[in-house]
Amino acid sequence: MKTLSTKPYKGTRDFYPEDQFIQNYIFSHMRRVAEQFGYSEYNGPILEETDLYRAKTGEEIVNEQTYSFTDRGGRDVTIRPEMTPTIARMVAQKRKELAFPVRWYSIPNLMRYERPQRGRLREHWQLNVDIFGAESLYAEAEIITIAHRIMTSFGAKQKNFLIRLNNRRLINAIMQDYLSLDEKTAHKLGKLIDRKEKIKVTEFDTELKKLVNKNFTKCKNLLAINKINELPKELQDTQGARELNELIKILKKQKITNITFDLTLMRGFDYYTGTVFEVFDTNPANRRALFGGGRYDDLVDIFGVEKVTGLGFGMGDVTMRDYLETYGLLPKYRSVTDLYICTFDEKYIDFALELASYLRNQGVNVAVNLTSKKIGQQIKTADKHGIPFIECIGEDEVKSDKFKVKDLKTRKEKVVNKGGIAKLIIG
Amino acid sequence: MKTLSTKPYKGTRDFYPEDQFIQNYIFSHMRRVAEQFGYSEYNGPILEETDLYRAKTGEEIVNEQTYSFTDRGGRDVTIRPEMTPTIARMVAQKRKELAFPVRWYSIPNLMRYERPQRGRLREHWQLNVDIFGAESLYAEAEIITIAHRIMTSFGAKQKNFLIRLNNRRLINAIMQDYLSLDEKTAHKLGKLIDRKEKIKVTEFDTELKKLVNKNFTKCKNLLAINKINELPKELQDTQGARELNELIKILKKQKITNITFDLTLMRGFDYYTGTVFEVFDTNPANRRALFGGGRYDDLVDIFGVEKVTGLGFGMGDVTMRDYLETYGLLPKYRSVTDLYICTFDEKYIDFALELASYLRNQGVNVAVNLTSKKIGQQIKTADKHGIPFIECIGEDEVKSDKFKVKDLKTRKEKVVNKGGIAKLIIG
Repeated sequence: MKTLSTKPYKGTRDFYPEDQFIQNYIFSHMRRVAEQFGYSEYNGPILEETDLYRAKTGEEIVNEQTYSFTDRGGRDVTIRPEMTPTIARMVAQKRKELAFPVRWYSIPNLMRYERPQRGRLREHWQLNVDIFGAESLYAEAEIITIAHRIMTSFGAKQKNFLIRLNNRRLINAIMQDYLSLDEKTAHKLGKLIDRKEKIKVTEFDTELKKLVNKNFTKCKNLLAINKINELPKELQDTQGARELNELIKILKKQKITNITFDLTLMRGFDYYTGTVFEVFDTNPANRRALFGGGRYDDLVDIFGVEKVTGLGFGMGDVTMRDYLETYGLLPKYRSVTDLYICTFDEKYIDFALELASYLRNQGVNVAVNLTSKKIGQQIKTADKHGIPFIECIGEDEVKSDKFKVKDLKTRKEKVVNKGGIAKLIIG
Repeated sequence: MKTLSTKPYKGTRDFYPEDQFIQNYIFSHMRRVAEQFGYSEYNGPILEETDLYRAKTGEEIVNEQTYSFTDRGGRDVTIRPEMTPTIARMVAQKRKELAFPVRWYSIPNLMRYERPQRGRLREHWQLNVDIFGAESLYAEAEIITIAHRIMTSFGAKQKNFLIRLNNRRLINAIMQDYLSLDEKTAHKLGKLIDRKEKIKVTEFDTELKKLVNKNFTKCKNLLAINKINELPKELQDTQGARELNELIKILKKQKITNITFDLTLMRGFDYYTGTVFEVFDTNPANRRALFGGGRYDDLVDIFGVEKVTGLGFGMGDVTMRDYLETYGLLPKYRSVTDLYICTFDEKYIDFALELASYLRNQGVNVAVNLTSKKIGQQIKTADKHGIPFIECIGEDEVKSDKFKVKDLKTRKEKVVNKGGIAKLIIG
């Protein structure tokens, strides 16, 4: 038999305690902010029937990037590549019972078949924050504020990220009325603009010319605009432009100033219908989208229930981790275990176990040596695991009720009685 | 286009906030106890190469119960049906760097293709607690103590669950030396005994006769034994029986008394080599295995690295949830949101948002009404979401710095100033 590989499957990660510590750090900030704003946690299955994604996720993803297969009972299933279809399905399922607005969040693991690269892996975790049944632009403001607050709660400065805003209603007005494009061409133009930053200007221009023909210059001029009040008058009067103006006003009132209008912002998913936004890293060496979201009016009713508007964003762990690392915002590893009890001889293990049990009841997380290894090796084990304190048990400790608790970082030792250990360690 | 189903994929669950609340309750107990004993959280990918499971998971599972398929790049992959192969792979990957013993836990989602029934679904979450590189029986005692402690931390009484113990070394001695069976027959007998409680006695006897032939009575007599000191003398002297005796002694010293020796306990996985245990519900209406685990000496070295012994258990959320429900041990739902701020008119939303921001900074989780719905409807929404407190904003509140905070359960209202709201709500 050939030797098995110890590597994780391509594009996925193993999380050793040091890695999981970072994940938990990131997740706990996401969770805390979402809950501060009144969002409740939900979850759904890792596997969904493939039809769920065929409807609205977008062809590129479903045809090229999903993990789809047929189960042993002949059903077409897909490992979830994103969470929005699942939450829309769940809202539709209880459309009549739910009290709107519904505010929910989740941090599911998702999979996409793609070429692994910086910021993109095949498996990632993604915070999803969504509000359903709230039509007012205050909902947009709330969702963007949450995104903003998570960033600043990590220690990111406003100058280090930028929130780009656009509106699908404005895009539609441009496509249909301003450029008079048919639906198919409009869709293609949207996809082209979405790829704008990833391709060469000459390539973009060639493609653009093919699509809009005599409107090429009109289109180029339009795409160069980055202020709403510089748009042609007829576009300024559209609902999309008015929504954008209003939203920017609300956000500024809430001291969110690192926002900008960006007509080229499209977002990949086909289901967005109103506001779309994306958070960008402003670091010149790494200008790219960190995450984004938007409003989707027509996703819940594809399940045959009465319409309800949705709005939300998805924030992935891979890009966030890279971002926080770049800006030096990740914490240093510290074990969740507070104390390692070493034993000078196996015969003290029973005593050590009793002491551990006593300390656990006081809230101290304790690991006990269960081996016959030498004391030096036991201490090394504790240190290598990042456990901050050790306590070595021998004849003295058993007899005297005096315990030498050692801080492995400062190398300082304090002598306390049994009742004083917990306080010394966890305060 | 046909209407999409709102149902989750067969055998999986949607977790609405009320359901996720229960999950989080269960997970938080699992987590806390594991961490109290010095275990650190890890995680691995949801997808692994299928070869990982072919080696040791057991034929039945790999051939009939996995979600296996070929990815777009031609690799054979499987959604993890259990976590042990992943953790063994991870330990093997860092075999030289890790300081042993290694104590790790995780609560992954897993998938098995089976007929959904009470206690068994296709997707479940499972706490996995494992220790590597600890050969002493104190390690067995620790792992079983953790399982026991999780049960009691949920409020389960010792009389309401029973820990059955057995040892694969003892089983091997019986198969090879006592019954002189060849490896293949021994394997079959093991599988038959594993199914003993699920099939009729007559069916069991017929199968048994086929396998052990003239040893039928010898075998039946043996299987009726439930005390180690009633085993034939030659079996009492085996390493397996001695380990069992010693382990029971250690556990009793630690006040774990709901344990019993059970020679018919096999555990499904092929990789166990020493102690095996299973926790049973003692409710006569529901006598069944809740979860279990054991020691596996030969799992890490299949990756071509030096041997290291492993030991652990997996505790599933589906069976635990059923168990806790049966015994009335599940908590009542309470929203993580503390306060819902209602508004008598849309014009007060800005004021409400500022108040919410102020309260969030003091640790209160606040949802704000963003709609133009009537106040009665807003209050109903808060109530339906299980949010305990409301505060309605109108002209009075804006002008007076007097806030009527209402407890939706007791229907009592208290008037406080802005500075007193947080204390009233979260104490």
